[in-house]
Amino acid sequence: MIPPVISKVFSCYLALLYLNCLTDLRFYLNKTSYLCPQFSGGKLFHIGRLSTVDLEEEIDEEESVVSRPKEIPHNEKLLSLKYESLDYDNSENQLFLEEERRMSQMGFKCLEMSRWLVCALIGILTGLIACFIDIVVENLAGLKYQVIQQNIERFTETGGLSISLILWVLLNSAFVMVGSVIVAFFEPIAAGSGIPQIKCYLNGVKIPRVVRLKTLVVKVCGVICSVVGGLAVGKEGPMIHSGAVVAAGISQGRSTSLKRDFKIFEYFRRDTEKRDFVSAGAAAGVSAAFGAPVGGVLFSLEEGASFWNQMLTWRIFFASMISTFTLNFFMSIYHNKPGDFSNPGLINFGRFDSDSTEYYLYEIPLFIIMGAFGERESYCGNLSLALLHFNGPVLFLVFSRRAHVSFTPAGGLLGALFNVLNYWLTILRIRYIHRPCLQVMEAVLVAAVTATVSFTMIYFSDDCQPLGEDQLEEYPLQLFCADGEYNSMATAVFNTPERSVRSLFHSPAGSYNPVTLGIFTITYFFLACWTYGLTVSAGVFIPSLLIGAAWGRLFGILLASFTPHNSIQTLADPGKYALIGAAAQLGGIVRMTLSLTVIMVEATGNVTYGLPIMLVLMTAKIVGDYFVEGLYDIHIKLQSVPFLHWDAPATSHSLTAREVMSSPVTCFNLVEKVGTIVDVLSNTSTNHNGFPVVSRLSDGCEPGKICGLILRSQLIVLLKHKVFVERARSRLNQRKLQLKDFRDAYPRFPPIQSIHVSQDERECMMDLTEFMNPTPYTVTQETSLPRVFKLFRALGLRHLIVVDSDNQVVGLVTRKDLARYHLGKHGLEELQLAQT
Amino acid sequence: MIPPVISKVFSCYLALLYLNCLTDLRFYLNKTSYLCPQFSGGKLFHIGRLSTVDLEEEIDEEESVVSRPKEIPHNEKLLSLKYESLDYDNSENQLFLEEERRMSQMGFKCLEMSRWLVCALIGILTGLIACFIDIVVENLAGLKYQVIQQNIERFTETGGLSISLILWVLLNSAFVMVGSVIVAFFEPIAAGSGIPQIKCYLNGVKIPRVVRLKTLVVKVCGVICSVVGGLAVGKEGPMIHSGAVVAAGISQGRSTSLKRDFKIFEYFRRDTEKRDFVSAGAAAGVSAAFGAPVGGVLFSLEEGASFWNQMLTWRIFFASMISTFTLNFFMSIYHNKPGDFSNPGLINFGRFDSDSTEYYLYEIPLFIIMGAFGERESYCGNLSLALLHFNGPVLFLVFSRRAHVSFTPAGGLLGALFNVLNYWLTILRIRYIHRPCLQVMEAVLVAAVTATVSFTMIYFSDDCQPLGEDQLEEYPLQLFCADGEYNSMATAVFNTPERSVRSLFHSPAGSYNPVTLGIFTITYFFLACWTYGLTVSAGVFIPSLLIGAAWGRLFGILLASFTPHNSIQTLADPGKYALIGAAAQLGGIVRMTLSLTVIMVEATGNVTYGLPIMLVLMTAKIVGDYFVEGLYDIHIKLQSVPFLHWDAPATSHSLTAREVMSSPVTCFNLVEKVGTIVDVLSNTSTNHNGFPVVSRLSDGCEPGKICGLILRSQLIVLLKHKVFVERARSRLNQRKLQLKDFRDAYPRFPPIQSIHVSQDERECMMDLTEFMNPTPYTVTQETSLPRVFKLFRALGLRHLIVVDSDNQVVGLVTRKDLARYHLGKHGLEELQLAQT
Repeated sequence: MIPPVISKVFSCYLALLYLNCLTDLRFYLNKTSYLCPQFSGGKLFHIGRLSTVDLEEEIDEEESVVSRPKEIPHNEKLLSLKYESLDYDNSENQLFLEEERRMSQMGFKCLEMSRWLVCALIGILTGLIACFIDIVVENLAGLKYQVIQQNIERFTETGGLSISLILWVLLNSAFVMVGSVIVAFFEPIAAGSGIPQIKCYLNGVKIPRVVRLKTLVVKVCGVICSVVGGLAVGKEGPMIHSGAVVAAGISQGRSTSLKRDFKIFEYFRRDTEKRDFVSAGAAAGVSAAFGAPVGGVLFSLEEGASFWNQMLTWRIFFASMISTFTLNFFMSIYHNKPGDFSNPGLINFGRFDSDSTEYYLYEIPLFIIMGAFGERESYCGNLSLALLHFNGPVLFLVFSRRAHVSFTPAGGLLGALFNVLNYWLTILRIRYIHRPCLQVMEAVLVAAVTATVSFTMIYFSDDCQPLGEDQLEEYPLQLFCADGEYNSMATAVFNTPERSVRSLFHSPAGSYNPVTLGIFTITYFFLACWTYGLTVSAGVFIPSLLIGAAWGRLFGILLASFTPHNSIQTLADPGKYALIGAAAQLGGIVRMTLSLTVIMVEATGNVTYGLPIMLVLMTAKIVGDYFVEGLYDIHIKLQSVPFLHWDAPATSHSLTAREVMSSPVTCFNLVEKVGTIVDVLSNTSTNHNGFPVVSRLSDGCEPGKICGLILRSQLIVLLKHKVFVERARSRLNQRKLQLKDFRDAYPRFPPIQSIHVSQDERECMMDLTEFMNPTPYTVTQETSLPRVFKLFRALGLRHLIVVDSDNQVVGLVTRKDLARYHLGKHGLEELQLAQT
Repeated sequence: MIPPVISKVFSCYLALLYLNCLTDLRFYLNKTSYLCPQFSGGKLFHIGRLSTVDLEEEIDEEESVVSRPKEIPHNEKLLSLKYESLDYDNSENQLFLEEERRMSQMGFKCLEMSRWLVCALIGILTGLIACFIDIVVENLAGLKYQVIQQNIERFTETGGLSISLILWVLLNSAFVMVGSVIVAFFEPIAAGSGIPQIKCYLNGVKIPRVVRLKTLVVKVCGVICSVVGGLAVGKEGPMIHSGAVVAAGISQGRSTSLKRDFKIFEYFRRDTEKRDFVSAGAAAGVSAAFGAPVGGVLFSLEEGASFWNQMLTWRIFFASMISTFTLNFFMSIYHNKPGDFSNPGLINFGRFDSDSTEYYLYEIPLFIIMGAFGERESYCGNLSLALLHFNGPVLFLVFSRRAHVSFTPAGGLLGALFNVLNYWLTILRIRYIHRPCLQVMEAVLVAAVTATVSFTMIYFSDDCQPLGEDQLEEYPLQLFCADGEYNSMATAVFNTPERSVRSLFHSPAGSYNPVTLGIFTITYFFLACWTYGLTVSAGVFIPSLLIGAAWGRLFGILLASFTPHNSIQTLADPGKYALIGAAAQLGGIVRMTLSLTVIMVEATGNVTYGLPIMLVLMTAKIVGDYFVEGLYDIHIKLQSVPFLHWDAPATSHSLTAREVMSSPVTCFNLVEKVGTIVDVLSNTSTNHNGFPVVSRLSDGCEPGKICGLILRSQLIVLLKHKVFVERARSRLNQRKLQLKDFRDAYPRFPPIQSIHVSQDERECMMDLTEFMNPTPYTVTQETSLPRVFKLFRALGLRHLIVVDSDNQVVGLVTRKDLARYHLGKHGLEELQLAQT
């Protein structure tokens, strides 16, 4: 009886430790810079808690004076000015038009071919990365579980299982620590699933460092460590981010990190093209993760594409297809079954037999009656009653099949609960745990707690099941079960989450008992909620599916046990309930509908479940949205990203461009003095990125007529190459600046400080005519906000110039001006803008 | 031996008759107006051959003078000015803004709810229509086949099968005649599948009468008649049109045909909202036709949505879902299997067992070797050799599974052949067969020929198969087969095409012999090609699938017979080849990829085939596009519709708005004389629909500054209500004009001729300030064509005003100005504009 005591003490200790962390965090905070002096310097960018790093530091300073921390505003009420916009609108300046005009029809065809080629490469590389992750995780996790299994088997009879526990905890902690250290110290942007970041990127927000090679490497290693470390995470979400990075890298034909330029695909070095390829990469990632090429396309479109273009969609589809095929092909070789293309994705839900997928309308009344009797069997009965309680009204509303009717509100509610909890946790993390070493400590703690809890659950579980012939369990643990039996709880936790989901979907009825499932659901729910947002690279899809599958199966079992036997035996298969529950839970958390439906259908390989899954996801979204937003949206809001939704808020017709725009605007003349330009660009307080070019008299005080728009990046290239009117006159044979020079500098244009301009040069003039975009889109001051919004969103603009009736510039609308307005509880609300 | 002689003579007679028709058509043409005097008056609109009706009549006149018809220009080189554009851009005039501002947040929520309600209603009604069609077709066709079967059985032994043939021909002709008469004489727009028309509508072209109740009624009755009449058509295509009509009707809350106004959904009475609902209706139609809700959404998006909006997509998805569910629900009741939701669409391909879906990479070399030996068995060998011939290069390129590699080029080539043949046929039809009575005659002739050919094929076929236990054949014909056997050719032709497809997919290996399939493929190919474009309401999906399934199965059988037995027995299932062949053929004809993939996957209920189908469809598109456009695009071009593709032609950067725009523009002053307005509107030679409103001095000759844009429809409502400045002054208590007045007049605004304006009133003034759109989108003259195109397409504009640097109106860009440019073989080409 020593082992349970020890494990209890140990877990209490861990819990205390963490509580201690939280309550006495202020103490830690003040000491941290002392404990980890080398890391106390602010990391430049760190998404997830990026936006308040500076804010935080101010508070730290305040805290040294006042004892209690001042209530800082929730940062979802802020809009960060630090994020820049991608420019989906081409700058059609003279250089560009000349190039396009020089290009033959053949040239355009070659360009189109190379786009397809890039998409194929994206697909192949993404598929290979998925292979790599899968194989490494499988082997490492296999090794780990074997070692632990042997250890447990050795100590089960001799006593001393606490040693097994410690081994388990240590192994997990070690993996997670490695994963967490590389993320926290080398590339904080690689934390989490990366889906919020990719959503932002596709929306048109430039998140710094998000599509770099280093991010990819850290992401891949990180996800391997966290999955092998036994955290409640999945390896699927990060694939989307990986695909996007691959796409951004390949399409540019060079790597800035490796300082290699392959001199190919130079035409694609601009935001417009890059964003299209990143869409394809994200789709390829989804496709490789779930074996869902169509789902990948829909994901990209649902999240990103403001303008639906048929050719683009086909290319995205092509990349998705290649990606899943590559994965499939190499995995089949790896598994020594070349040609067996039945594993199209990282996760494989297994095939659902279409015979067991029947639902009957007449089961609905049965189900309601069952709900009335649902109070047997203490705990489980209560849970089922609670679930049924939510269904009453919906049951009669949706007039549909049985199971999903019940699952959807539950999924929505549980999803909302998950999101609310994670929201508060994230707020806490932003406030208190923003130093890398603290983050690593938290990750290791979670790993230790996860292992301990899992072990405790297995240890106290007395749910023994006979070992079947067709052994679905990879590592059956006998523990205190009789010979020829295994511990059923161990199947759920002593396994990678992917396998557990599959086991919940496909194990024959009776493999799990309800108590096991109930405890597992509750525990895993809180673990997963705690885990999401840790400084490790990991996804939330699989944990959500696992939670949902567990309570779905539980529900199915209870349902079967309440139904009179011999009447309807088809009810007895709890696997389908597990599937519906998984969809409901995932839908409740991430709130995608169309793309998620298709992903689930493709991953299960069975269209029959399409309709129930659709209903479930839609209802889960409606129910969930009533309480709180989706998980990704919460995290985007907490990062204060100026995210543009699909439409302007409904009641915003009363606002016009005049009220929305930033004014006054810094304009340049067609021929402008170099000194003026340098001064404007160096002004850090404004930090504008686009400048209308106007024609005005040199002494004119009134604003001039709009002639064009020039970007900061273009000006910097011009300054760097010293394209001054005087120099052009003096040196006739000077090389003319070409579009290539702009492309070479893309996307990391040097800061203005790095460009030396002598005092003489400051007096020179620059002629912007050739380089500015001569036909920027403009609106008048009276244009309503929804109209401005539509133009901005549909064309993916970065700057929209507001002019008066004389075509004189009066203002400039940018992303933040539009993202500022949102529909709150009391009508239209305006977010504050913050420099952080 | 009498019957075959008779049938041969009869079919020769029919062939001669038709040849006669074609060669001596000029004779007929000149006589037609004499034969059918009551129909010689030009029908107002008649899509399919609409655009040249007037042209034709001019030629008729010429023909009476000169003996040989003058070579008329192919009308795909023309662009008709008759088609108007839908306006997806809201006219945000003061009335509109006031209404929006008055509306509370609750109001917007209600509006959103009613949008969902409308979508639900669309789904339900579309599902019900699909049910109706299915049940009526099933019963009528069943009755017909029973009668004929009994008749054949009676005469098989006694001799005199020619009577059966005549019965069959008469029955078919009668049905087709009814179907053709209602289409030709009552609603010519209901001809064909309606998909090209809906494509145009979703693209933003207003096709007259396309979404009226009468069209729906004729369409539904027409499709029933043509399917029961045994033509080589399907009942699925017209569902898309039906869904669109339902959507347009319901969303407006009234029926102009029935003169009923339910006073609901008044807010939706404008192009923007209506077009969104029509998208949903089209999706619901696809969903009901193929049981493919996701495919329906993708179809709508691929064809229509220029601007992808998440909420809209979900509503479309919802409508699709409801539609397939309704169909499923009522069909399950009709079939006395309530609760069995396994028939989600009109067509049901049956379930593919996932065990038989394996392809192995190592089959590829086998396949190539087989190709080398592919000359056995005379005819069949040659066919397979021919197929293999196309594959050589592709086989090594695509490095993929076996079957689709071979099918795709074949599908692409056969599809292209189909399209080319149909193109020439349509040209002939446009020239010679444009009188309704001729059209009816042709339809009846095709019906007779189809029946005759089918009968001949059955008669001469000696392919007898044993009657299985699980009888897949509904009407097995014994004919000259031994007892307990049935004629296998009869299964293919003596059946509705849907059943034939299913039989080809699922009949066990050996049900068909290769010769039967070969003959059937060739015959049906030409029949289907002849049939598409007839003046009957019918779809091309099912015939395409049937052709593809037939040669696919043939290919599978040949493949199996060439493979050494005992080696790979999985090859033996020809059903999967039938499926892949069907996809290839359909893809080669209609050239959809993403949506068609999803539709096929959903219709077969099996995701495993997703990847092969994708590859097949993509390759079929690439191969097919090399020769000729897709069938729908051909028909749209032949109708001279100003269809906007996704992008401007690649090499059009050298064109600017200045060159593209129409100029000079008719402008109005802010306060304009009524007489001027009436004169401009009455001018039939220009027939403009949008007028920039400018502010200029009353004596100014120079163009004024742009103030807004007013539409013809708005001016007509203003004139009708006599909103003159003088009257407003005199009668103070006059009711102010509201948005409701415009909505009531929508969409059939009265012509200007119907509005009486007295001479006194002509001298009055009209103040347009309140009614014009004060913030129309504008571009400068230097804007390049792709930029103009993108703005126009992304926002769904109808008019785009071109201004100079002083904001003075210099031109107007409309749909036809953009659709005019297309990329031909020799670079950028410009289509001519024609009044017809």
